[in-house]
Amino acid sequence: MTDKKIPHRLYLPEEQMPKQWFNLRSAMPEQPDPLLAPDTLRPLEEKDLYPIFCQELAHQEMDGATAYVDIPEPVQEVYRMYRPSPLIRAYSLERALGTPAKIYYKFEGNNTSGSHKLNSAVAQAYYAKKQGLTGVTTETGAGQWGTALSEACSYFGLSCDVYMVKCSYEQKPFRKAVMQVFDGRVTASPSRATTVGRKILEQTPDTTGSLGCAISEAVEAAVTSGGAKRYVLGSVLNQVLLHQSIIGLETQLAMEQLGEYPDIVVGCAGGGSNLGGLIAPFMADKLQGKNNPRIVAVEPASCPSLTRGKYAYDFCDTGRVTPLARMYTLGSSFIPAANHAGGLRYHGMSPILSKLYHEGYMEAVAYEQSKVFEAAVLFAKQETILPAPESAHAIRGAIDEALKCRESGEEKTILFGLTGTGYFDMTAYESFLAGTMTDYMPTDEELQKGFDSLPDIPQNQGL
Amino acid sequence: MTDKKIPHRLYLPEEQMPKQWFNLRSAMPEQPDPLLAPDTLRPLEEKDLYPIFCQELAHQEMDGATAYVDIPEPVQEVYRMYRPSPLIRAYSLERALGTPAKIYYKFEGNNTSGSHKLNSAVAQAYYAKKQGLTGVTTETGAGQWGTALSEACSYFGLSCDVYMVKCSYEQKPFRKAVMQVFDGRVTASPSRATTVGRKILEQTPDTTGSLGCAISEAVEAAVTSGGAKRYVLGSVLNQVLLHQSIIGLETQLAMEQLGEYPDIVVGCAGGGSNLGGLIAPFMADKLQGKNNPRIVAVEPASCPSLTRGKYAYDFCDTGRVTPLARMYTLGSSFIPAANHAGGLRYHGMSPILSKLYHEGYMEAVAYEQSKVFEAAVLFAKQETILPAPESAHAIRGAIDEALKCRESGEEKTILFGLTGTGYFDMTAYESFLAGTMTDYMPTDEELQKGFDSLPDIPQNQGL
Repeated sequence: MTDKKIPHRLYLPEEQMPKQWFNLRSAMPEQPDPLLAPDTLRPLEEKDLYPIFCQELAHQEMDGATAYVDIPEPVQEVYRMYRPSPLIRAYSLERALGTPAKIYYKFEGNNTSGSHKLNSAVAQAYYAKKQGLTGVTTETGAGQWGTALSEACSYFGLSCDVYMVKCSYEQKPFRKAVMQVFDGRVTASPSRATTVGRKILEQTPDTTGSLGCAISEAVEAAVTSGGAKRYVLGSVLNQVLLHQSIIGLETQLAMEQLGEYPDIVVGCAGGGSNLGGLIAPFMADKLQGKNNPRIVAVEPASCPSLTRGKYAYDFCDTGRVTPLARMYTLGSSFIPAANHAGGLRYHGMSPILSKLYHEGYMEAVAYEQSKVFEAAVLFAKQETILPAPESAHAIRGAIDEALKCRESGEEKTILFGLTGTGYFDMTAYESFLAGTMTDYMPTDEELQKGFDSLPDIPQNQGL
Repeated sequence: MTDKKIPHRLYLPEEQMPKQWFNLRSAMPEQPDPLLAPDTLRPLEEKDLYPIFCQELAHQEMDGATAYVDIPEPVQEVYRMYRPSPLIRAYSLERALGTPAKIYYKFEGNNTSGSHKLNSAVAQAYYAKKQGLTGVTTETGAGQWGTALSEACSYFGLSCDVYMVKCSYEQKPFRKAVMQVFDGRVTASPSRATTVGRKILEQTPDTTGSLGCAISEAVEAAVTSGGAKRYVLGSVLNQVLLHQSIIGLETQLAMEQLGEYPDIVVGCAGGGSNLGGLIAPFMADKLQGKNNPRIVAVEPASCPSLTRGKYAYDFCDTGRVTPLARMYTLGSSFIPAANHAGGLRYHGMSPILSKLYHEGYMEAVAYEQSKVFEAAVLFAKQETILPAPESAHAIRGAIDEALKCRESGEEKTILFGLTGTGYFDMTAYESFLAGTMTDYMPTDEELQKGFDSLPDIPQNQGL
């Protein structure tokens, strides 16, 4: 049953690792809409971001033109400790599904952070260190980003303050412990440590928190540090998609060596870091007419920013202290149900991916979590990897495409991103196995409440 | 600082994966002493083992002569899903230690079981399936073996009953959940489900359990299954060392490709499965005079079978139902303190390794766990992998050898086995980080109590 020409796992040799990131914006016919200052509503310039981001990252955030950006040697040095990640042919899963489709996945979980997040964490920590900062602040949802950043900061000798979404902090005590191994300082968010945290707690004392809240707190902690620290973010931002392009570049190279090209590329989508990185070269091919893969984003039905959100200017945080970005959003006040897939709880979506979706280059589909965990358990049994719930959204999407091929008899090549492992999500697995997992889909009324929080500005008229 | 010729991580291409296991016994000048029947004290024959082990495994257990054993194709097919495992050059750790030594490690944690245990689990499950059995029974300490076996059984469609040492069962609820993802049926041991479990509970109602107890229960469950099931074990046995030789064979091949040979090979030692597998080809070189690497076993000071045990015939279990093996042992009644390094709590040691140690081919050293966790945290920060406490014993040993090289200026090549990841051991890490971890070393009187339980048979006279 195994195709002798295609190994189960392809690791590129170290010398073939990409030495540059790829900037997907450079291939877009139109750039994403600019960030706006929340007070004046004028487009931000690079230097406006210097109080929040370190300068090199502010530059990367604003630079849509440069196609390839050199990966600094110290970042490459860390990449070489856990990359290239394998491109895996899912022979066993294919057999179990009885599909004629070929299924490939790029597995990013072989590092302590357990996910692709380390790719951007290393870059951001490096630039912060290079600028002479003493530390960084951030938020984390499921904990993968906080872990990755703690790892990276420990390596480069920076302090790392992590505001962790309260429901994850409580459900995942061991996540906190992993961050602490790397000297990360973890605070449950919303907290009383920041002005914005205290304000949110006053308004909603029982909140389980959200990425939006935690971002507000982390930004405040950075801008009130007297210039010693900056804020860093693990998703949504253009700079993050740039760093994560390493996933797609390696995948493209590995598939070339196998003589393959994906008909369908599937990724899970929270803020878009993994999806944007995985699809980067394939989407560029599509935009430039070189090839025409289907690109499918998979999101949770409980936090459906692409499938049920609005394409609007919105704050990136709940406390409304950040610049405004034009993106698919559920409104910055939207707090999803205490969904187990903690990494996919963000109200918005990468502006780059939002633009591409809005213009029809990308599809999106939403799944309820019991369907997602069903796919996760099937996958684990077949492929010896226990997936993170976030990643399992992509598995669900890929399995459903493969099942369509079983019906149609088409031998499509399906590629999906397996962003990480689920070792810290066993409470969710237990709940699934015990049959006590509940699905949740916000009602139209609940969504409307979120939309009501969209900023009332000229740019949002007619939504 | 990086040696350009040596990549950080070397993955052998799939086609170079070993297709045969190597039987270290075939290179030994003298065979390990035979297993004895507990009643008659006569050496066991292969067929005597058929009620406990499936036939092919019984054969492997007794066959010391065959040097190479073909790996069945269905086992190779699973190996290809997570192997070859990487041989990693610890550049970052070397820099942090300021050592001229070159440090390599073979990392076995890239699968859901999180450890090397899957290598033997797949083989044992396959042979059980081939013989037409419906399931297998086993014990697990830290949970890595139980997870690996559940994975393997799920893949081959066998039931899997796991008796889990009670203190691990209670300290690691998520371990149980992972096994359940793979349909493993997990029981805390000692339990009331078996005659021997009830007997142990009567004698010592407050026991936290031990591998020796759990083995007794699993064996009973197999032999009372009416022939439908057999017992399988994740360590100690000759057959397990045979399967685990895949670790050493891959390592040897990878080092050859790098033009390297280890001066020192370091492995953690509980029952000996990892150590025996890792060292197999290097020990063979040593026995055959082709090379002379130092081989170092690292064990916990709390369960020091090699460094403080006796070389004697002993039961492999606490309930005294198994055959007798000649090995380094603390006595089958020895129950170690509730040590966090759950996988290294066995009272005995592989008869093969015991023999080699007894004859001076191998060294052994014991560490208290706070020293081990100190090494684990240093390693995690440098190498992006969070090690299992068991594995961290080998890290400690390798670091100390590297520090000796810093003193002496010698550029030795150190190889160690990194058996797995520590994601399910965060309670222990928390305790270490909080400064509440306590060390424990049994007193001579406590050890004597264990030795008093050694069987009073002619073969043990004069100990």
